Amino acid sequence: MQLQDVTHVENIRFGDENSVIIIDQTKLPNETVYLTLTTPRQMYDAIYLLQVRGAPAIGIFAAYALSVLANRIEAVDFDTFYAKLRELGAYLDASRPTAVNLHRMVTRMLNTALAHQTESLAAVRQALHEEAIAIRDEDIDMCRRISEFGLSLLHDGDGVLTHCNAGPLATSRYGTGQGPFFLAKEKGVKLHIYCDETRPLLQGARLTSYELQRAGIPCTLICDNMASLVMKQGKVQACMVGCDRVALNGDAANKIGTSGVAILAKYYGIPFYVLGPSTTIDFTCETGDDIVIEERKPSEIREMFYAKPMALPEVACFNPAFDVTEHTLITGIVTERGICRAPYRESFAKLFPEYFEKKT
Amino acid sequence: MQLQDVTHVENIRFGDENSVIIIDQTKLPNETVYLTLTTPRQMYDAIYLLQVRGAPAIGIFAAYALSVLANRIEAVDFDTFYAKLRELGAYLDASRPTAVNLHRMVTRMLNTALAHQTESLAAVRQALHEEAIAIRDEDIDMCRRISEFGLSLLHDGDGVLTHCNAGPLATSRYGTGQGPFFLAKEKGVKLHIYCDETRPLLQGARLTSYELQRAGIPCTLICDNMASLVMKQGKVQACMVGCDRVALNGDAANKIGTSGVAILAKYYGIPFYVLGPSTTIDFTCETGDDIVIEERKPSEIREMFYAKPMALPEVACFNPAFDVTEHTLITGIVTERGICRAPYRESFAKLFPEYFEKKT
Repeated sequence: MQLQDVTHVENIRFGDENSVIIIDQTKLPNETVYLTLTTPRQMYDAIYLLQVRGAPAIGIFAAYALSVLANRIEAVDFDTFYAKLRELGAYLDASRPTAVNLHRMVTRMLNTALAHQTESLAAVRQALHEEAIAIRDEDIDMCRRISEFGLSLLHDGDGVLTHCNAGPLATSRYGTGQGPFFLAKEKGVKLHIYCDETRPLLQGARLTSYELQRAGIPCTLICDNMASLVMKQGKVQACMVGCDRVALNGDAANKIGTSGVAILAKYYGIPFYVLGPSTTIDFTCETGDDIVIEERKPSEIREMFYAKPMALPEVACFNPAFDVTEHTLITGIVTERGICRAPYRESFAKLFPEYFEKKT
Repeated sequence: MQLQDVTHVENIRFGDENSVIIIDQTKLPNETVYLTLTTPRQMYDAIYLLQVRGAPAIGIFAAYALSVLANRIEAVDFDTFYAKLRELGAYLDASRPTAVNLHRMVTRMLNTALAHQTESLAAVRQALHEEAIAIRDEDIDMCRRISEFGLSLLHDGDGVLTHCNAGPLATSRYGTGQGPFFLAKEKGVKLHIYCDETRPLLQGARLTSYELQRAGIPCTLICDNMASLVMKQGKVQACMVGCDRVALNGDAANKIGTSGVAILAKYYGIPFYVLGPSTTIDFTCETGDDIVIEERKPSEIREMFYAKPMALPEVACFNPAFDVTEHTLITGIVTERGICRAPYRESFAKLFPEYFEKKT
């Protein structure tokens, strides 16, 4: 089937009825290691140790994990079964407390069990299995819609610059910010992707260039500071990135460095698109100024990944994980319901009226 | 003496009459190793292996090396002495064929010997020793002038962003692009330097942050892609960088990533200054379009410095060593004779009339 040929990297799947198989993202790109997880502890660690990462992927994984663990709960009545399932859910949910998708999907699985409490335990287990698959299928569907809208903005032969990782590994299939590239491959649309390595954690080098290479999509890895030259040389016709949080005015928080790419794109007259599911639009956040930027430890800049430290230990570092791209720099925000354009508040209200009705 | 306190890192000095002592730049920042070089082969290797680097520093080193080697030439007449000296000069000159300063300073030392050929060999040797010191002193003087003009553009309390390395290690003292920071320290002017790590070779992390830290100048190391956020947060009041080649219209080639910094500075309304000696102005080069960009090997992006590779070996990389910053992005070009402003051709002609007279 062509889909699998293209995405190649299947990051989460069922093994036998007692196991979930994931690709260990911490070993990429040097080794493609699949882990067969059977115990709650292994599953907790998979999230905690970032063997599975990316908010949508973590949510899907937790659903798969609960579905598999449910098969081995020893119980004859629903209440005993559910108490144990809830305990397992709380345990997994604690592996990354700030991940919204994780909590949401654990809750959804528990509610699924409750909805079937009058049926046999076999039927409940079957329902959990189907719900996990539904969660994944909905994510694929959402990614595919985003990718379709995103791809409509590109042309055969385009060079596209991207930053960080928002591809299949972080989701189910396709991805968000990088989804259009995988869909283009399926459809025979030729693109050439310029992939920022994305310091300091190198998600672009370790994950995005890996995914693209494995899928046979032409890509060129560059250091972040080479984006200006690549744009100047006319190699790039569009920029596409994912997002972590979007404010009502269209300001978009994403991996550190994104705002710099947007400013360069504006300077060179290249369209800059932000892609993400509507769940990343924060309808309670007026502007990007309200978004707090997480700062991480200096060792990621000075030492991490290196054979030897690259700066003196006493050298101070500033290591913000995200930045906010001003809405005036964004050509369009691509969601699963369509492409939003400035003024973004009005555009969001048109595509997502339910959130605006709620507020009044 | 305060000068030495501030620059701290003395990269090239005489040992006894038969040796030159350098700091091994390949061991920085983890080890501050001084090498005592006595043989031609050791001196050749010091340049070839980048133990000494930076065009001005290489020129000074070659002069010191020839002066020291001249002391051990076995000869009773000038012709024998000079033949041997010329041989040694040609040998050192071959260590980095593209370094203009190296060739120029070797030639200058040979001409110095010729100018004293009627005197005793002891007098010739003394003249060579003095010429080597003169070469260094002229470089210090040039760096100091550039630093003075550069510092006149800054204010007490300023944050200044810089890229790559153009400090004392690359020159004699002070440096060019980073010279004003060291002069500010001497004068008690308080600055805070934001130092781009400068991928892929990390000169900013390995060398610039090292020099600043050792000199007690407050600095913060950032990844290249963090410059946009640092500027947005109001931490930076000016950008200062060195240059490798400047065209007549003011377009300036410098380390890859420089043009991106300039575009960000323009967007945020921050002045962007290029600093360099007049020898980097190419009076035969009309615009930056005439400057060829050197491309280097992919392994510098995928593997270099890392404990393990960070991308698949088959991932293509684009690895340009330099980029050209358009003159419209440059607030001023600081030379040893003063600060040039747009239109740059007219400004250059005013400060450097001798080059323009020659042409007509």
